Amino acid sequence: MIYFDNAATTRPDEECLSAAAKYLTDKFYNPSALYAEGYNLHVELAQSRVNILSHIADPDDYSMIITSCGTEADNQAIFCGGRRGNIVTTMGEHAAIFASAQEAGRRGVEARFASLNEDGSVNVENLLSLVDEKTSLVSVIHVNNETGAINDINAIAAKVKAKNAHTLFHSDGVQAFGKIPFRLGANVDMYSLSAHKIGALKGTGALIKKKKLQINPYIWGGGQEGGLRSGTENVFGIKMLEFASEKAYKDIRRRAENISAIRERLWSLLDKNLFSRISPENGSPYILCVAAAGVRGETILHMCEDEGLIIGTGSACSSNAAKKHSRVMQACGVGTDLIDGVLRLSFCASTTVGEAERAAAILNETVQKDKDLTK
Amino acid sequence: MIYFDNAATTRPDEECLSAAAKYLTDKFYNPSALYAEGYNLHVELAQSRVNILSHIADPDDYSMIITSCGTEADNQAIFCGGRRGNIVTTMGEHAAIFASAQEAGRRGVEARFASLNEDGSVNVENLLSLVDEKTSLVSVIHVNNETGAINDINAIAAKVKAKNAHTLFHSDGVQAFGKIPFRLGANVDMYSLSAHKIGALKGTGALIKKKKLQINPYIWGGGQEGGLRSGTENVFGIKMLEFASEKAYKDIRRRAENISAIRERLWSLLDKNLFSRISPENGSPYILCVAAAGVRGETILHMCEDEGLIIGTGSACSSNAAKKHSRVMQACGVGTDLIDGVLRLSFCASTTVGEAERAAAILNETVQKDKDLTK
Repeated sequence: MIYFDNAATTRPDEECLSAAAKYLTDKFYNPSALYAEGYNLHVELAQSRVNILSHIADPDDYSMIITSCGTEADNQAIFCGGRRGNIVTTMGEHAAIFASAQEAGRRGVEARFASLNEDGSVNVENLLSLVDEKTSLVSVIHVNNETGAINDINAIAAKVKAKNAHTLFHSDGVQAFGKIPFRLGANVDMYSLSAHKIGALKGTGALIKKKKLQINPYIWGGGQEGGLRSGTENVFGIKMLEFASEKAYKDIRRRAENISAIRERLWSLLDKNLFSRISPENGSPYILCVAAAGVRGETILHMCEDEGLIIGTGSACSSNAAKKHSRVMQACGVGTDLIDGVLRLSFCASTTVGEAERAAAILNETVQKDKDLTK
Repeated sequence: MIYFDNAATTRPDEECLSAAAKYLTDKFYNPSALYAEGYNLHVELAQSRVNILSHIADPDDYSMIITSCGTEADNQAIFCGGRRGNIVTTMGEHAAIFASAQEAGRRGVEARFASLNEDGSVNVENLLSLVDEKTSLVSVIHVNNETGAINDINAIAAKVKAKNAHTLFHSDGVQAFGKIPFRLGANVDMYSLSAHKIGALKGTGALIKKKKLQINPYIWGGGQEGGLRSGTENVFGIKMLEFASEKAYKDIRRRAENISAIRERLWSLLDKNLFSRISPENGSPYILCVAAAGVRGETILHMCEDEGLIIGTGSACSSNAAKKHSRVMQACGVGTDLIDGVLRLSFCASTTVGEAERAAAILNETVQKDKDLTK
């Protein structure tokens, strides 16, 4: 089976699982306990947070709140970061931000959504026009999870701060962390990430924040995570995230170039009479979004599966969302002729050229076959 | 090492880990994905929820929202269940309820805290006196996590409803689920549980709710868990909870009796010149809370550890809380002579009589030694 839905979730890395296994057995203790076995884990987790953080930010300036997932991190950013006036975000956000901003709107904090460019990146001019003196939070997705378009969040954050220095800037980095070379610029106040997108586990995420930034917890209780996220620390999940990040950031640049070449090889082999490309060339190497006119993505997905290729149709993180048209695709201006036929191919560090070539062949055959059948 | 801090966290069960391992490898897919590998997991998880739920409630009447922990489930109950007027809860709650209710208070929903009896159970008369026509939610912990006192939540819920039929009734069942024989009565609207207290994993919990009850999600996004808890489903964690629950509920009554006998054997061996008992006899078999006058619990904890016995001092779920006096112990009226010397011994299904006897000997020697040293 060729698995090209890595933007939905990745297979947990075997090496990391082996290294972390002891946190399910010998080191199963509660890190808040006072005896050595507990306290030692507490100390170890403090180092884990620094280790994970260091890949993209200076631990002197930023700290890390471990959460249960990227979605929870996004919720904390929206509900604890955007408490007054208005929140400005984009039409290209993952549902974790989009639905949270809508809910904030229902609670009296106005939610404003910036338009997108054709490739799924945010229209920066439009975004800035929505920022005013009452904007408490701006949130812009780093890598669009459907198209792979990269928003230059450091530059956007600087422009936002120039317009309103009191506005907090957050970015959902779930599809960027561990995949594209990047460091947080001084104007980014908060950044979300997820473990299961890079070979670690479902059930772990993080909200990185400026050390100086005071925000409320979203989950209240025993005061773990420096008081900012209560609940017994998921030690196994955190260690998996630490190990998988370390692996991801070793040679991240070379790996991104390699996957980028594989993506372009795949695209080069797709029949241009059948497929249009939605993903930009300068987007994340890990996502190739294409559309086939006159077919239904879901049908193609099932036919490909029968041939040994697993792909996605838009965002699989959004439960049942595939049953209606993707909001992001509509905001990108994908026409009615193409919007039913959108397919997302997404890769991981171990994706090979051979897999990409085989996938291209399956896709060409499958779409052609479906078109012939429905003629 | 004898591990008697199972109320803080339990060692993950080896059999369950073996059975669930495939959800980290072959079955790692995203349950929201449309291809068979994803969709089959979606179907499997629907059955898992019913299987877990069935142990304590009728799946025709109740449904289950899988959360990232007991704390998150408690937060959802408080913030989404208690949205108007006042919330009535108790001084004996875990911090997940207590701190959430305090925060609700800061947001304008009055938080009222009922007093406790000596053993840590709620003073029901006092609780009922706090319920009025404006009470939107009552939350009473099922098994007190420090003393093991059991609140008869079905009876309390009935009395609350008799006073105000519109009030929702929630219970934090984290120390009860999988440990004491019990089924949810018709007046209990919501019930929280945690996986890592019964041999499953940190990072999984659940909020059980009446099917007919409409509440908001607390984590917004892709719409997983029937729209009530977004974020990619933690399949491995959920399957672990399913397997561990199955094991816990097989013979739950016989096991509870066995552990109760072990607890009483331990208590019978403790030197009554050194130890006072705080836990009631009719409390959870899994918790024995005692206090030794004239010593510091933390000192005894470390001395016991050196002798091969791991115990707790009050709630280890509450990060750093051991550094000050336990709120629950104060509310139980534990005097100043004893409150520094509180120790919590907590057991699991595999605790043996031999361990209990050895623990009693270590505790007697240790406290005597510390007293002699500090004379």
